[in-house]
Amino acid sequence: MMEESQYLEQFKKMLESKDMLGIKEQVSVMNEADLAELLEELEDADALIIYRMLPKEKAIDVFTYMGQNRQINLINAITDKEMLALMEDLYFDDMIDLLEEVPPTIVTKVLSASTPEERRKINEFLMYPDDTAGSEMTIEYLSLKPEMTVREAMDYIREYGEDSEMVYTCYVVDEKNTLLGFVSLRELVVADDDTLIDDLMLEDVIYVKTLDPIEEVAERFQKYDFLALPVVDQEHRLTGIITFDDILEIIENIDTEDFHRMVGIGGDSDDDYMEETPWQLAKNRIPWLLILMISGTISAGIIKHYDDIISRYILLTAFIPMITGTGGNTGSQSSTVVIRGLATGEVELKDVFYIMWKEARVGMVVGFALAMVNLLRLILIGTDIGVSILVTLTMMITVILSKLLGALLPIIMEKLGQDPALMSSAIITTIIDALVLVVYFNLAGLILTKIA
Amino acid sequence: MMEESQYLEQFKKMLESKDMLGIKEQVSVMNEADLAELLEELEDADALIIYRMLPKEKAIDVFTYMGQNRQINLINAITDKEMLALMEDLYFDDMIDLLEEVPPTIVTKVLSASTPEERRKINEFLMYPDDTAGSEMTIEYLSLKPEMTVREAMDYIREYGEDSEMVYTCYVVDEKNTLLGFVSLRELVVADDDTLIDDLMLEDVIYVKTLDPIEEVAERFQKYDFLALPVVDQEHRLTGIITFDDILEIIENIDTEDFHRMVGIGGDSDDDYMEETPWQLAKNRIPWLLILMISGTISAGIIKHYDDIISRYILLTAFIPMITGTGGNTGSQSSTVVIRGLATGEVELKDVFYIMWKEARVGMVVGFALAMVNLLRLILIGTDIGVSILVTLTMMITVILSKLLGALLPIIMEKLGQDPALMSSAIITTIIDALVLVVYFNLAGLILTKIA
Repeated sequence: MMEESQYLEQFKKMLESKDMLGIKEQVSVMNEADLAELLEELEDADALIIYRMLPKEKAIDVFTYMGQNRQINLINAITDKEMLALMEDLYFDDMIDLLEEVPPTIVTKVLSASTPEERRKINEFLMYPDDTAGSEMTIEYLSLKPEMTVREAMDYIREYGEDSEMVYTCYVVDEKNTLLGFVSLRELVVADDDTLIDDLMLEDVIYVKTLDPIEEVAERFQKYDFLALPVVDQEHRLTGIITFDDILEIIENIDTEDFHRMVGIGGDSDDDYMEETPWQLAKNRIPWLLILMISGTISAGIIKHYDDIISRYILLTAFIPMITGTGGNTGSQSSTVVIRGLATGEVELKDVFYIMWKEARVGMVVGFALAMVNLLRLILIGTDIGVSILVTLTMMITVILSKLLGALLPIIMEKLGQDPALMSSAIITTIIDALVLVVYFNLAGLILTKIA
Repeated sequence: MMEESQYLEQFKKMLESKDMLGIKEQVSVMNEADLAELLEELEDADALIIYRMLPKEKAIDVFTYMGQNRQINLINAITDKEMLALMEDLYFDDMIDLLEEVPPTIVTKVLSASTPEERRKINEFLMYPDDTAGSEMTIEYLSLKPEMTVREAMDYIREYGEDSEMVYTCYVVDEKNTLLGFVSLRELVVADDDTLIDDLMLEDVIYVKTLDPIEEVAERFQKYDFLALPVVDQEHRLTGIITFDDILEIIENIDTEDFHRMVGIGGDSDDDYMEETPWQLAKNRIPWLLILMISGTISAGIIKHYDDIISRYILLTAFIPMITGTGGNTGSQSSTVVIRGLATGEVELKDVFYIMWKEARVGMVVGFALAMVNLLRLILIGTDIGVSILVTLTMMITVILSKLLGALLPIIMEKLGQDPALMSSAIITTIIDALVLVVYFNLAGLILTKIA
């Protein structure tokens, strides 16, 4: 296999020398995903030239693999006739995803070229709220009837299977389209020709509802390892399926969202760093930083409150960044472990006391180790013994306190029915900063005035 | 579908009243993944009772879904005969995963009960390094020969398909087992009975090598949307396959690892928070916190260096947490976006200048907004005008500086061939802390002494 950058160089050369035959030859052997990546790298005009040289079947697959921005640019560049042909050949869910993003003029063109039945379906799909099972599902699935034999079912698959995004799991429905069960293509292939689907199908179908949040759908996939999940409406009628390849992308987006939330960038899973303007990026990041700054006022207030002792012991100032830094980082460690554990389902809400107890013990071990190293360091560089003891004690308390809070705060968010990832490190750092400063200065008052 | 907690209550009641018939009935209708979850919640003895009531086929699937700790406990509890029967029926990759974790006595028992051929394969698999394609692959795949007809291929699948983890993609090999191409079950079902596999197969196979890191395998899956990828050795011979359900888990583990690295917890993707002792957890977290503390010495040194100006303007102390906090959080935001972008492939190394320029602009917008709000706040609460200007200016410089550094540091790690997620927030915070303190105090020297 060639590397992407080599492909790019090769195509640029061929485009320059107008070597259309070479291009045609090269695209015919390349994989669809690689071609899509190549088209993303090229200028609009060049991408269009190469796209038009693809055989029709391949062109559609390549289009599906491309990023949304490239897709929209391409749609705007091709003729109306080409665009309508393309839309017709896309899988239904891919077409809906695209229609949600293109200019209204294109939606109108597509709708007016559709049959009334198609128009009804398109409108229905465009109405499912974002990030629900309904908005991600496809209608290209195979449904069998319980009274079919395996032979009839296989004939049916042979006839209609070419058009279906996922033929490996077939769903069984009654005449009202109520979901009754499922049967895998593997079982069909292995089974006797005369067996009834009714006898072969499994009735314990795991399904999702059209309005279920997409996060729950992703969790189901991770738990059950299915190739596809059926989506049913309120009356338990089969309305679509969601396939594993869509889920890979959704899981990636959910994780990205969690990463961003934890550092206090709201953002949407659909947003794309490379394509957003600095203004949009700034808009996502400012709110949490503002909260952080306002809370900086609290820290400032606390420090001002103790300016009496600070002016007597200027040295105290030197350890403020270390103490707040340790608190913030220790807290983030615990909260990250808990937030990630809750997201993957490894940690459950009922484990709250177990987790707190564990973090407390981890805090004691870590706190003691850090405090001892720190004491040694302070004494070695010849710090005043009173200050050394003060900083060492504060470090221990800081670590234990922030481990506990770091674990507790995301759990409280989850208990309140909120996304624990919203409990970003910024908020945790803020709360911990204020607490450890109070501890630090109060201990300073106790220890230093006693010793002095 | 019933909720998990309801199942648990129901089973506990049935176990108490020794209602074996009720248990048998209930397990027969439950899904394997749900049963595994149930067994994880129960005590060892109770889990064993229920496990033994499962029909043999179902028992193996349930076992596969269980967590490794529960698996090992169960293996230790059942008889040798039961254990060997279980091992025999497990898919090869699941058996290898298990053998890597169980006590050596069990490995010995399994090896001595195996045929020489099996023994050779087991030993070979146990030798693949962790986190390579070889260590995750399974040998249960279907391979066809190019000279077979579709009819012969389907007969072959009917005969051997029951035992194969993934029948939906069949690989085509020559007599030396060299990988020639692949054909999907869907194409076989739709194709004419007399077509030759040679004419049907696609030759442009995307494959991985036995020693490829598992991260690369996961990226291939995300890019190409395949159900399975073939694994070949140095001589391009097919040695196994990796299936999409294993990949879902691997992607989850890689992301968890990234989350943990970013907050400075080393840890292994296989480690399990709920099952680790506080000692192990502490051990993972101490190294970075130590680095952080040692670097705290730098901040302390900087502050001590400026104690002259601090003692004249004690108020300066009050803003230290806000400034270092803003720097740390702003830096983490940029680094998280870049690290995540690099991990998902959305951001590429060659985009480095583009990213720096974008982050600089984001920094200017965010910095200006924050600085203005801050200036207003300081003036409203009646802070000295010199200090207000100083803090406002420092905030602006801090935000721009930390946005740039936050984006640059992970990119440098990637350039050096290291995992960018290793550039944890702790290190970024440390570097930024030191820099912004120097800026703060130098500006203070300039502004305050001029005004005074």
